[in-house]
Amino acid sequence: MNMLELIDKKKRNNSLTEEEIQYMITNYTNDDIPDYQMSSMLMAILINGMNDNETAWLTKAMVDSGDVIDLSSIEGFKVDKHSTGGIGDKISLLVAPILASLNIPVAKMSGRGLGITGGTVDKLESINGFHVELESEEFIKQVNEHKIAIVGQSGNLTPADKKLYALRDVTGTVDSIPLIASSIMSKKIASGADGIVLDVKCGKGAFMKDLEHATELASTMISIGENLGRKVAVVITDMNQPLGHNIGNKLEVAEAHDFLSNYKESEQGLLDVTIAISSKMYQLATGVNEEEAERKVVETLSNGAALDKFKEFITAQGGDSTDIIAKNTKHQIEVKALNDGYIQLIDAEMIGKSSLLIGAGRLTKADILDFDAGVKIVALTGQQVKKGDTLAILYSNKDEVTESVKLIEDAYTITNAEPVKKNSILKIM
Amino acid sequence: MNMLELIDKKKRNNSLTEEEIQYMITNYTNDDIPDYQMSSMLMAILINGMNDNETAWLTKAMVDSGDVIDLSSIEGFKVDKHSTGGIGDKISLLVAPILASLNIPVAKMSGRGLGITGGTVDKLESINGFHVELESEEFIKQVNEHKIAIVGQSGNLTPADKKLYALRDVTGTVDSIPLIASSIMSKKIASGADGIVLDVKCGKGAFMKDLEHATELASTMISIGENLGRKVAVVITDMNQPLGHNIGNKLEVAEAHDFLSNYKESEQGLLDVTIAISSKMYQLATGVNEEEAERKVVETLSNGAALDKFKEFITAQGGDSTDIIAKNTKHQIEVKALNDGYIQLIDAEMIGKSSLLIGAGRLTKADILDFDAGVKIVALTGQQVKKGDTLAILYSNKDEVTESVKLIEDAYTITNAEPVKKNSILKIM
Repeated sequence: MNMLELIDKKKRNNSLTEEEIQYMITNYTNDDIPDYQMSSMLMAILINGMNDNETAWLTKAMVDSGDVIDLSSIEGFKVDKHSTGGIGDKISLLVAPILASLNIPVAKMSGRGLGITGGTVDKLESINGFHVELESEEFIKQVNEHKIAIVGQSGNLTPADKKLYALRDVTGTVDSIPLIASSIMSKKIASGADGIVLDVKCGKGAFMKDLEHATELASTMISIGENLGRKVAVVITDMNQPLGHNIGNKLEVAEAHDFLSNYKESEQGLLDVTIAISSKMYQLATGVNEEEAERKVVETLSNGAALDKFKEFITAQGGDSTDIIAKNTKHQIEVKALNDGYIQLIDAEMIGKSSLLIGAGRLTKADILDFDAGVKIVALTGQQVKKGDTLAILYSNKDEVTESVKLIEDAYTITNAEPVKKNSILKIM
Repeated sequence: MNMLELIDKKKRNNSLTEEEIQYMITNYTNDDIPDYQMSSMLMAILINGMNDNETAWLTKAMVDSGDVIDLSSIEGFKVDKHSTGGIGDKISLLVAPILASLNIPVAKMSGRGLGITGGTVDKLESINGFHVELESEEFIKQVNEHKIAIVGQSGNLTPADKKLYALRDVTGTVDSIPLIASSIMSKKIASGADGIVLDVKCGKGAFMKDLEHATELASTMISIGENLGRKVAVVITDMNQPLGHNIGNKLEVAEAHDFLSNYKESEQGLLDVTIAISSKMYQLATGVNEEEAERKVVETLSNGAALDKFKEFITAQGGDSTDIIAKNTKHQIEVKALNDGYIQLIDAEMIGKSSLLIGAGRLTKADILDFDAGVKIVALTGQQVKKGDTLAILYSNKDEVTESVKLIEDAYTITNAEPVKKNSILKIM
């Protein structure tokens, strides 16, 4: 077997076998297959596709390329979630305590932010004293005691995926559904999950531009789950504005706290997505029907159990559970509407870029975050505004904010047409 | 403009512009585009193809990447030929003196052999005293005086093609018609030809396995010629056995001499292909019709003018025109038929490998050739043989010939079915 034969097969649109995919991934991870051969293969996969079996084998090969977290000493069904990337997405901070308060163990590994995408681990670190690095034993002990722990990624998980992703990024081979699906699923499976709920973002600014492609990605990931013995469900959510009001590390912790304190006051999109994903996770873990799952989720939000669990979780990981409000920044700049009309769209990518520029995100891995910096969305999609009304508030410790303000202004599309109310949940699979 | 945008266009099956192709080739040649990006692009081109304009622009960009030979000080229409690679292919040694004897200037650059493919320059060097390295002025002076010169490649011709070819070879992107066509045409155009006759080999052992693909390659090269102002004609020839009787450097010179001395005795395939290509070259150079061109070619063969020109050419380049017979090698091994029957096929690739092993060819560029080593095909395709009849003679100075003999035995397909007589010339375009 050699890589040229495998490239030849795939370029002629023939399927690869499990052994062939394993060979390719093992040898690429070990640097025995050069980048220029793998990129040629990746382009052949991007154009000719992969069938469900190939995609599952690719996922498995990537899982097998590194460490696999063993959660078997945690009692119960371990359910995880993943989002394809949103701005202001604090869903993990919400669903984890919700599930834990319902006695479902949440043993979660999360990443740090890079570019416009935030990371759950960074958000948690904005809480005074919070530790994201737990030894494997501590991690498992905490989940068994408190049903919840969220830590940074440790160990050498899916090195094949890391190497492949870096190559895809520079060879025009990112936007391939089998490659995206296997990348996401390999990470979650290596993290030890029995069940996975995926939040696939759809629309402008999201990876999947339309419902058709989002559905295809969802089906592919569900099929990988079936092939590799994991329960998988997908919630396809709309991205016509950032999720919730707040973007920025501490600002998002604060919004999560507010949500758990009084979910009825929360922004509708954030509420809908949180309930949909929590319910799906509860369903996967317990096997109850949709209505019952949703009833349990709303109950734990209403009776304060989820909020209590949130505080218990922060305390357990060394954090100060009262430190949940962003400190006042040097500047709070109100960004005003430039004209009258209805807000059609708030471009999440531009809002993400705006908050990145004032230090809420990292441009490179070495950058130091300003936990208190960020953006608060005041006027939401669908709302009618007049010229001069406040659209958003920029929280900045930097003096130079011209570009950030401009980005927020540009993010808002305001026209006279009354916008059609869109549902945040496009599809549940 | 950046390479990722161009990869994105091609992977979505959109056409590239002239500027985009120029940008890509210039920057790849300068090492400003890495191999892993170019291989991803090459695979997208292989699968999605290129239209005639793109293929012509690619050819032009490769010509422009290096030196271009200026033959303007040679009077008359300069016509060149190229073969897609055959075993025992001594056609250049024949058509060059034929054309020159008809007063058509032949200013030819040829390559050295590598692997199973021989090189015209090596064959000429097997003649005692023959120089293949002429200074540019000498080269032109000789063509103006004698109408013929054949030299080794000098200067930095089509460096882009050299770099791309090396990458294609290791990334599974060789077998793409636009890439093959632009590679061949760029070399010939950079060598200064006004007109080019291409011998496209077709069949088992050849690059183009069937007439459909051979025709597609031919059309693509003709279209490149139209786009870039060169006259191009194609002769598609069958490869059901090596060309002529002899394979090996000096053995091929000897066969060329015999052919020019008495063409009527020559092997039919060699005769047909030589006449077809010479006639086409003469047509391109003079504009006469096919019958007239063939009449002139046969005339110059019959009246000895082509043979005289062959000797004049050897002498002009310092060679001994009487040194045209292979010296006796240490061993001459007769390879016998293993069974009775009709010869259906002589696998040219296997014969090439057999003679490579005994030193007639180079495995690496540093290998030293044994000019006298080679294979003489005694029994040709279509012939009826009995077990024990001599099929071929192996000329070797090496003692170990077991594998070479086995390869010749295996090259012969001998069965009971009376074979259908095939024409060597499949199509002229």
